[in-house]
Amino acid sequence: MIVMLAGGVGASKLILGFSKLLSPDQLTVIGNTGDDMELFGLRICPDLDTVLYTLCGKVNPKTGWGIRADSFRCLAALQELGGEGWFQLGDRDLATHIWRTSLLKQGYSLTQVTDRLCQAFEVNHKLLPMTDSFVPTYLVTDQGELHLQEYLVREGCRPVLKELRYSNIEQAQPAPGVADAILKAEAILLCPSNPFISIGPILAVPGIKELLVQTQAPVVAVTPIVNQRALKGPTAKMLAELDYAVSPTAIAEMYKDFLDVFVLDERDEELQQEIETFDLKVVTTNTVMTNTEEKINLARRLLEML
Amino acid sequence: MIVMLAGGVGASKLILGFSKLLSPDQLTVIGNTGDDMELFGLRICPDLDTVLYTLCGKVNPKTGWGIRADSFRCLAALQELGGEGWFQLGDRDLATHIWRTSLLKQGYSLTQVTDRLCQAFEVNHKLLPMTDSFVPTYLVTDQGELHLQEYLVREGCRPVLKELRYSNIEQAQPAPGVADAILKAEAILLCPSNPFISIGPILAVPGIKELLVQTQAPVVAVTPIVNQRALKGPTAKMLAELDYAVSPTAIAEMYKDFLDVFVLDERDEELQQEIETFDLKVVTTNTVMTNTEEKINLARRLLEML
Repeated sequence: MIVMLAGGVGASKLILGFSKLLSPDQLTVIGNTGDDMELFGLRICPDLDTVLYTLCGKVNPKTGWGIRADSFRCLAALQELGGEGWFQLGDRDLATHIWRTSLLKQGYSLTQVTDRLCQAFEVNHKLLPMTDSFVPTYLVTDQGELHLQEYLVREGCRPVLKELRYSNIEQAQPAPGVADAILKAEAILLCPSNPFISIGPILAVPGIKELLVQTQAPVVAVTPIVNQRALKGPTAKMLAELDYAVSPTAIAEMYKDFLDVFVLDERDEELQQEIETFDLKVVTTNTVMTNTEEKINLARRLLEML
Repeated sequence: MIVMLAGGVGASKLILGFSKLLSPDQLTVIGNTGDDMELFGLRICPDLDTVLYTLCGKVNPKTGWGIRADSFRCLAALQELGGEGWFQLGDRDLATHIWRTSLLKQGYSLTQVTDRLCQAFEVNHKLLPMTDSFVPTYLVTDQGELHLQEYLVREGCRPVLKELRYSNIEQAQPAPGVADAILKAEAILLCPSNPFISIGPILAVPGIKELLVQTQAPVVAVTPIVNQRALKGPTAKMLAELDYAVSPTAIAEMYKDFLDVFVLDERDEELQQEIETFDLKVVTTNTVMTNTEEKINLARRLLEML
């Protein structure tokens, strides 16, 4: 059984690849919920939903998030009532948030709700939230403190990042099933996701980093940085603003305490020796996934390696 | 200033007529909230919304409730997730419920939320909920106890009514502004609404019936029964099942403790003497409103009478 630690759009590409090769009992995804948000009183889990919509095939292929061919009539009406419209909530996507919020209100945990959503969307591979607690990530920026989604979506990643705050994380614990999955896994894969806002919150849940140190299974990270650029989103910008090198080396160093294998893109193979100094095995391959075939191919190469 | 006690579709016809003749400071509507419901964790106020949508001109003219040309994509998606689809929630209509629920969660009262919705929909006439408390009406029927909307919408009024229960009503009090409006009114009008599920809950709010007895202004009721039939909804069926005569006389008798004038339809003028025995003035006119002109005409005749 493979466990994947995942953010949103970047991660879901590789997860899709693995899902085509592994049966439901062979793959568990532990999803970031640090990007969760309350909007209009609704609990929104963008990363979990991106994985969910990707695995069920309903994802909007143009954006990588949201639902294909969704309409935005409710959001337009909410804006007419005075609501903010910067977070794109499609009419069909809204049903997920309404349903989730309603179940949470009835006392179901986020793990239970996510499981029910998986069943409803006929997603058979296991998707676990990293924690059942609400632990939104806030960014301290030159424009003040912003919720992660405000930074990403409303402000288009323009503010300069000074510091991250995983709110409420000290009180959080891994969701039921998370520790068990990590300890039973034959390999743990850190998806090519942002280390600060996607993988970072998962590692910040008390206990999870220790589990990654403890497990006998290889822990493998796929680089989210290729050729000094992020494959997706503000990873490169954040690295620079937080005084890291915009380099796979910086990523590998962050994970070195528990990491066994670093998957470097072939475009950056000159960095292999540098990364090996962290006492890691470095594997070099094409990590860029622009279509389903490449997603499956990368998953296949990683499985062969494991 | 005229105060109208109102249910939903039937009432909103007459309210629309009055709104065309009276300025905002001349008309206050006290709306029934006994038909309120929580669905998918959202607070839904069908009667208040029907008045709101009617007064702003957005109401669906075919149904008399909901929003004109609305779509139902979110509801379809909620049903795919396992939600019940019997209550028609349009995508634009949903925005009202999401917005209301969100404001209530933030601590605003239903009165404040209703006021904000009126502003957003540019409804200038005053609309007050009868109470800020959540006091859903339940019906004891041969099919068990049902929430009013389950009875009306899901069950299509088919179950046999045995008893009504205005839940939580003893703890309720009139919403801010309600007592003041009644005491300052130059006339109070009971709309041609169902006496059990529309007007009944308003009268059941502790203090409101006493205010109607106390006020010096004339209290006027417009018959919801014409020619032994209800103009709208299950009024006739309910009267029969609760062992009342299906007659305007039964309606007048229910209100006789505080009623000054009963507006009888001209089709029932033979009942005038019978109703006058309750020590009421009876006015006979056409009360059937099938178009805007008839709504304004009935409002004008009532204003002239007052």
